[in-house]
Order: sequence, then C-alpha cells, then structure tokens
Amino acid sequence: MDKNLWQQIQLVRQHSPLVHNITNYVVMNNTANALLAVGASPIMAHAKSEIHEMVNIAHSVVINIGTLDEYWSEAMLLGAEAAHLAKKPWILDPVGAGATGFRDRILNQLLQYKPTVIRGNASEIIALAKANTTVTKGVDSTAKSDEAISAAQFLVDHYQTIVCISGETDIIIDHEKTFLIKNGHPLMTKVTGLGCSATAIIGAFIGVTENATESVAAAMALIGISGEIAVLESKGPGSLQVNLIDKLYNITEEEFSSHLKIERL
Amino acid sequence: MDKNLWQQIQLVRQHSPLVHNITNYVVMNNTANALLAVGASPIMAHAKSEIHEMVNIAHSVVINIGTLDEYWSEAMLLGAEAAHLAKKPWILDPVGAGATGFRDRILNQLLQYKPTVIRGNASEIIALAKANTTVTKGVDSTAKSDEAISAAQFLVDHYQTIVCISGETDIIIDHEKTFLIKNGHPLMTKVTGLGCSATAIIGAFIGVTENATESVAAAMALIGISGEIAVLESKGPGSLQVNLIDKLYNITEEEFSSHLKIERL
Amino acid sequence: MDKNLWQQIQLVRQHSPLVHNITNYVVMNNTANALLAVGASPIMAHAKSEIHEMVNIAHSVVINIGTLDEYWSEAMLLGAEAAHLAKKPWILDPVGAGATGFRDRILNQLLQYKPTVIRGNASEIIALAKANTTVTKGVDSTAKSDEAISAAQFLVDHYQTIVCISGETDIIIDHEKTFLIKNGHPLMTKVTGLGCSATAIIGAFIGVTENATESVAAAMALIGISGEIAVLESKGPGSLQVNLIDKLYNITEEEFSSHLKIERL
Repeated sequence: MDKNLWQQIQLVRQHSPLVHNITNYVVMNNTANALLAVGASPIMAHAKSEIHEMVNIAHSVVINIGTLDEYWSEAMLLGAEAAHLAKKPWILDPVGAGATGFRDRILNQLLQYKPTVIRGNASEIIALAKANTTVTKGVDSTAKSDEAISAAQFLVDHYQTIVCISGETDIIIDHEKTFLIKNGHPLMTKVTGLGCSATAIIGAFIGVTENATESVAAAMALIGISGEIAVLESKGPGSLQVNLIDKLYNITEEEFSSHLKIERL
Repeated sequence: MDKNLWQQIQLVRQHSPLVHNITNYVVMNNTANALLAVGASPIMAHAKSEIHEMVNIAHSVVINIGTLDEYWSEAMLLGAEAAHLAKKPWILDPVGAGATGFRDRILNQLLQYKPTVIRGNASEIIALAKANTTVTKGVDSTAKSDEAISAAQFLVDHYQTIVCISGETDIIIDHEKTFLIKNGHPLMTKVTGLGCSATAIIGAFIGVTENATESVAAAMALIGISGEIAVLESKGPGSLQVNLIDKLYNITEEEFSSHLKIERL
Repeated sequence: MDKNLWQQIQLVRQHSPLVHNITNYVVMNNTANALLAVGASPIMAHAKSEIHEMVNIAHSVVINIGTLDEYWSEAMLLGAEAAHLAKKPWILDPVGAGATGFRDRILNQLLQYKPTVIRGNASEIIALAKANTTVTKGVDSTAKSDEAISAAQFLVDHYQTIVCISGETDIIIDHEKTFLIKNGHPLMTKVTGLGCSATAIIGAFIGVTENATESVAAAMALIGISGEIAVLESKGPGSLQVNLIDKLYNITEEEFSSHLKIERL
C-alpha cells in the first residue's frame, strides 16, 4: 500500500502537472510554494475573461472559497463549469461553509459541477451537506465525527465525489472504501492555510493519477508526514511554515514509509 | 502594572477570540499567522454579501485600508457600521492616510463609526486628524512628535477612541491617560506589515478585555518585546519575519516582564 | 564594471526610492519585503480612484499582470499612462504572456505606454512580441533562446525599451548593447515569484539611476548573487525564500564582487 502511495508522489514529480488555482488571498503565496515543492506548476488566475482558457491548459483545477466575493464567486462557478465540461479533475475547498448564507449558496451551486474531490474539516463537511438544498433529507447524527462521516457519505453518494475530512485523523471516503490517515501534528493548526495547501496538493495529485482516491491519501499523508518531520526542527509556527515547504521538497521514500500511519476500512 | 499586561495576553490565549479582518493583500498571510500565534482565531472576509453575518459572529473587527479600492472601501464601511451598531470593538489602521484624496475621504467616513482604537504611525495620525472635515478646527503644531500627539488628542476627544501612535516609542492615548512603550527594534521597520500585525493583535486583545487601553498597551508591548528577542537570532528581515511569529507564540511571562519598558504619564 | 554595478546598489540604499507597485496577489508580501531589503520604500495600491496621485508621488512604477482581471487591468493601464505622461520610469512584467487572449490584449495596450524596462522569461518575451498587433511582421526563429533574443530586439526597437530575459543566463538588451549575467541557482525556480521580485527590484533601481541599462544589470546580479549565497544555507525552497531576503539586506560589496559573473557583448 505505502509503495503505491509513494508512486503517486513520484508521478507528480515526474509529470509536473499544471494546476489552476482560484483560491484565497491569504494562502496564495504558500499554496504556490507548496505546489512547486511537490513538483507541480501552479497557475493563479481568476479573471472571468480568461478562466476558460486557463482551465483548458491546466491538468486540474483547485477552487477554494476562503475570501470569495460576488466577482470571485462568479469566476469560481465558471471555473468549475469549465472543468466539469472538459472532464478535468477539480477539487473544492469549502472554507467557512456554514458561516454565512452567501457561502452556502455559492457552495451549493459549485456542487452541481461535481467536484472530483472535496476537502474540508468536519464542520465544513457537515455544513456543506446541510447547505445542499436540492434534496430534502438532511444529515443527522449526534457525535461530531460520526456526523461528519455521515455528511461525507451523503456528499459521496449525491455527487459521485471523494470526500476528505481533515483533522487529527484524516478520513478519506469514496463510494466503496475509507482510508484513515493518522499523520500530522497539532502545531500545524497554528499555521494559517495548511488545509488550503493540502487541498492544492491534492489538486496536483488528481491531475496526474489514474487512482484518485489513492492519490488523495498520498497527498494527505505527504503533508502530514512532512509536517511531523518539520515540527522537529521548528521553534514555533513561523519556522514550521518554512520548514514544511523544505520538507515537502526534499522528503525521501524512506522518511515517508517509516512515518506513514494509514488504515483502510 | 506588567502583571496586568501579562493577564491581558493570557486572556487572549484562554478565550481565543474570533477576529474578523478586512485588511490589505500584502499582509493577509502574516496577519493571520500573527493572530494564530497569540492564540486568536482569524477570519478574513470582505464580500458585501456576507459582511454583516461575519461581523455578528466575530468578537472584534479589524479594518486596514492598505490596498483599498472602491469595492473594498464599501465593504469596510459596511463592516464598520455593523460593528458600531452591534457594539463590537473594532480597530482602524489608516494605512497611507494623507497620500491621496480617496484614502482621506474613506477614512473620514470610517471615523463616523467611532473605532474603539486607531493605530498608525505619526504621519498617518496627523493626516487622519487633518482629513476630518466635519469640524473646522484643524491640528497645528511645529514639532512632528508633538503634532502627532496633538492630532491623537483631537481624535480621542472627537471620536471617543483610543489612539496608538507607533514608532520608536509607541504612544497610547485615551481620554484620561497616556502610556509610552519603548520596546521594539529598528530592524522591524524592514519587515513589511508589522504595523498591520500590531493592529490585528490589538484587534484580538480588544475582543476579550474589559480594559481596552490596557489591552492596547499589552498588545504593543507583546509585539515590541517579541521583535526584540526575535532580532537576536535573525540574520536580516527575512528571518525576523519568521522568528517573530515563533516568539509571539512561545513568549513566556518571564521574557515579557524582564524586557518590558513602559511608562504611564 | 562591477564597481559601477555596486554603485547602483548603493544609490538605492542612499535614496530609498518610493516604488509604486500594481502587482499580483501571490507575491505582494515577498515583493514588499524584497524592496525593503534593498533599501527602497514599497507602495502597493491599485484603486482607480487614486492611481494618478500614487504615481505622482512615486519615483517609479512596477506593473505586473500575474493575477490581472478586468478591474486591475484598467488600473494598470491608468498607471502606465500616468507614468508615461509624467515621464516616470516604469517596468512591465508580462507574467503568463501568451497563455490567454485576455493577457495578450492587455499587454498590447500596456506596451503603447512604452515601459522603461520589460522583464520576463524567454517564453513571455516571445509571446509579448507576438502579441503585438500594431505591426505586421512577427518574430520568427527556430532555437528558443535565439527566438527570445530576436523577440527582445523587436521590442527594444519598437518601444525604445530595455528588455531583460531572465533564465539560467539573464540577457539584458538595449538599443546598443547586451549584458549577460550568469548568476543565480536552479533552486530559485522552486520559490514562487522570484521573477516578480526581480522586476520590483529593477523598479527600485530605475527610480534613482541615470543609467537604466546598467541599473537593470545591477539589480539582476544582486538577486542572482544573493540567491546563490542564500542557497548555501538553505535546506529547500522554504528557507531559500527567507534567506534570500536576509541576503538582499546584508550583502557586502566584497560578496557581490567576488560572485559577479557578467559579460558585455
């Protein structure tokens, strides 16, 4: 299994996919650096006048609604539609889902273009399933982690997507299997936008793979393990942000395999 | 006194206030990381369609006009109005006040929503007082530092606000007292946006305190002292930016108290 | 020769030019820090309501189309026009030229305001020459580097500009001479936006010099040499980004001269 995951990492390094990002202002620099570090080529572009052409030259598309507004949300919808029509893999990061009605309306529209992957934290995945207004049955559960898994399964079923719930344990769910990844470190939550970096890295991986679910697992393991190793030489979140980019760039198969904690359900 | 200031720092760490930032593109990443490092939770959002809801879930609001444009300035005015109406503490950073007529017009409108705190350098505070067009009496003085203090007192009187003039000595003025903080290091002026980070950190502090003026002093001392310590292990402004985030995160009471240089007038 | 280049670096440190940037979201923080590190004062502003005033207080203008959209492209055109009319030096960074029709249309309009300098990689310089629709004769060549030089010469002739083609060897061409600079390191291509930083640094240099071509050479040598030295203490692209800013700030004449690899054709 971990042999296969490392092969996914190698694929990205070999093929250097062009990843088109319509993402948020806070993380653009770090996201671009994370993509370069794993061997991909980032494009950041959002103009409605060129979205179509950009999607067409890219291998995959990342849509992250973090700092959306009326203009950007139109650009995101155009990007998602273009990716859907051109059958390009694309990933949705529903940042702040549930926080405002505006976010939920845009997310609901984005879902219609069937993202290849959705990555968010438990609250966002739950809110995303609830934001769905095209079905009447909601998501209900008592325990939070159970609720997120139930929400993820709802999204998987209704949108033929793969859902990654990130957290202390990352949970990756497709229509037939579930992976649990127990890598990462709590200090990573003190660096802004590492979830967004994870989304972008997944975006690179789905641009070159033939096994999307496995590539999501590989991407999440890569950032989790790189973070764990980077923490060891960091004095706080500032140096962790820097050291993580270094480690994404120079991680070896030996480091990856010896740290990997994955379970398949 | 320094016991009280450290308690303000502890309050933020304990309550992790949600700080809604409508800020500039240059500093969004660093500002978010600075807020996380001091224990707060940053939100960055500016869409007119959701400003109201965001302000309502936040503990405090930060408005920084650094890269304003026509759209963003409308969003800032909506955010300031919402904070004013909901009685949420908010802070104004008048970046580049006086540089253009556009900035001064927007600033003058923002002032009508009575910020809890205003933080800027001496030139910005002077320009802000001059930009005020609703009163006829201007600010006049010969010496620059005197002029800034006179401008600050004018703003305090007319808007029931607290003014922080940052510089080699930070001067914090409210309606009855003045604090001088002599921490910080000249290399900090070579890192972009540390003034903006200071504003955001104050934004976190006023979100949880019952003594706003003291919390402004605590926030300014925290960034100044963290900067002083971070400089010691930095080779230049690049590493200072990183080390400062680390130190904001791991500073101890002992480090804080032993470096603090504060005077109350 | 290297004595002259070092003098250009000293000029920037002494005069601290105010550099007005209309640039892309990805690199704003790094660009501002690079400008501060070399001794310049960055302004980042793009509002159509204030572009004119900002250009008028600046020593030079940087226009970088990386994340352009309809609004920003109008702002860029206003900025270029204002710089042209006020005879302020300005530099164009045609990021992603050739990728979309939208970019090429805007670039073609920007060229009409005759940038003092254009800096791009070989593909961008070739695309920029091809995007030109006011002349019928295109650019034709077989070998890529020859093609870029031919494209650069076309741009120099038609727009009375200086062209810098950055790459493993940087090529700087004006109407009478060519400089080759062989500094830099491959790891620099794994850090996002170092080309954009180079453009901004050139922007600072042309704001204070009387010899624009020599100042472009000095700026390119400065970033190349600083990168080479910074790589030696970097574990990957994350730490390189940080160490490069430090080195831009603290590089000495001795370090500069001993690393400089320049040829004049």
